[in-house]
Amino acid sequence: MEILNGKETAKSIKEEIAQAVKKRKAEGKKIPHLAAILVGMDGGSMTYINNKLKSCEECGFESTLMRYDDSVTEEVLLNKIQTLNEDKSIDGFIVQLPLPPHIDEMKVTLAIDPMKDVDGFHPMNLGKMALNLPCFISATPSGIIELLKRNKIETAGKNCVIIGRSNIVGMPLSILLSQNADPGNCTVTLAHSQTQNLAEVTRTADILIAAVGQPGFVTADMVKEGAIVVDVGTTRVEDSSKTAGWRLAGDVKFDEVAPKCAYISPVPGGVGPMTVASLMINTLKAMELKGK
Amino acid sequence: MEILNGKETAKSIKEEIAQAVKKRKAEGKKIPHLAAILVGMDGGSMTYINNKLKSCEECGFESTLMRYDDSVTEEVLLNKIQTLNEDKSIDGFIVQLPLPPHIDEMKVTLAIDPMKDVDGFHPMNLGKMALNLPCFISATPSGIIELLKRNKIETAGKNCVIIGRSNIVGMPLSILLSQNADPGNCTVTLAHSQTQNLAEVTRTADILIAAVGQPGFVTADMVKEGAIVVDVGTTRVEDSSKTAGWRLAGDVKFDEVAPKCAYISPVPGGVGPMTVASLMINTLKAMELKGK
Repeated sequence: MEILNGKETAKSIKEEIAQAVKKRKAEGKKIPHLAAILVGMDGGSMTYINNKLKSCEECGFESTLMRYDDSVTEEVLLNKIQTLNEDKSIDGFIVQLPLPPHIDEMKVTLAIDPMKDVDGFHPMNLGKMALNLPCFISATPSGIIELLKRNKIETAGKNCVIIGRSNIVGMPLSILLSQNADPGNCTVTLAHSQTQNLAEVTRTADILIAAVGQPGFVTADMVKEGAIVVDVGTTRVEDSSKTAGWRLAGDVKFDEVAPKCAYISPVPGGVGPMTVASLMINTLKAMELKGK
Repeated sequence: MEILNGKETAKSIKEEIAQAVKKRKAEGKKIPHLAAILVGMDGGSMTYINNKLKSCEECGFESTLMRYDDSVTEEVLLNKIQTLNEDKSIDGFIVQLPLPPHIDEMKVTLAIDPMKDVDGFHPMNLGKMALNLPCFISATPSGIIELLKRNKIETAGKNCVIIGRSNIVGMPLSILLSQNADPGNCTVTLAHSQTQNLAEVTRTADILIAAVGQPGFVTADMVKEGAIVVDVGTTRVEDSSKTAGWRLAGDVKFDEVAPKCAYISPVPGGVGPMTVASLMINTLKAMELKGK
């Protein structure tokens, strides 16, 4: 069994980006600038944003964080987005989700210029992704693709089962892994809450991707001997042994599943860091696409 | 075994639309207007376009056909599209594919205003479809969904295997049938040319959809007893017994597969007429969306 070490892989990617940025700087060219909007004080969101800003620093990017109180109106947010769309110094920006219930997340997503939508959540980017056109692919699916690629996982002709049909992970990933690409060319089955006999389905998987958001959802009996397992779960669970009082738990019961696997991605240190690395790739691309 | 009679189902849809248009007319409201661009003399394309124009007539729509020679330049075509985008009397329009090799089909598709893109090929519409937002769903996938719906086929929790990952049929249909919708909530497997042990995969299907474009591709041994089979194939094959010298052949060996099925759609008279009916639905919707 080998570990799909997302932490290490993400580190190499960020080092490569830092090199590219250094070179740009030496040539007097613009360096990438990522802006992020954070609304409220959600602990998870703050951690994610901090990781993203830290990664910007590691990559040599400029970054700007704009914070708003929970009570911010949709109008103020939409106006800010308009400003960022027009601001030529900003190459890409993200609005950290979730937003408070009085704000329409889809309206916010649709307001972002697709050319600056480095989260790849805009339908224009999703549609282009599905058509295999140049676009921003959302960070988690593209992080998983990159993790498979850099660990030289053969995917062509493999049976892949994805558990979870979310708009930002399961669904787009099912499209990507089905495409005539490398990684890709998998026979993908997208499973979800309505799937019957789930274990029977998942046992057909050469590549099993768990994106459910339920700690320990995937047990050993659901996994085929020699499978490649990618764990997308990142749920905070109480853990009094940790200073923070919690730890991140994946969707996979690692201890019992890992021995059956050819490869497995751990939580933490698997998909999470790859997601942030993908955002950095997208930000660099956003700048390059504009020919800066 | 029951036949999924697309011809009859499409007829009812068109009658419903004709009623709605009649009512609009009586109220002095605008009636839908579909425009179509046809390049060259391809026999298949001409047949498709004729069917579409005939359906417009049946629905009480206005229609306009614009024909160009094979030698038309991309520029002329793009200018025409711009004119149609701006023409308020046109609710929706289509460019019949395929186009001659010197014209970039994707460039043409991207030039169409997504709000008039009643073929649903624009990435904006595809992305919105994937996010379950209001949009134009391309005619063949939405025709299949409508065929299942109007024939009261239960889909939730069913295993669905789609053979063929094309941008206009297999891929979008895999997204639609996976969604939390009715029809939908299937566990969808998207199979294609790289799929291993295809017959093993297709035999797991409660609902099997063949969109390969190879006559007789699906044989009885590939189909589970009691399955629902939808045949999307429409290949012209020589047939000296027909006046035209050819007939349409589906992807499914009907004679040997049908006895095993709970339901099966024939070719012709299955998905084909539903595709045209969907285009009519989209055109009506295009007008209504603009509040006309």
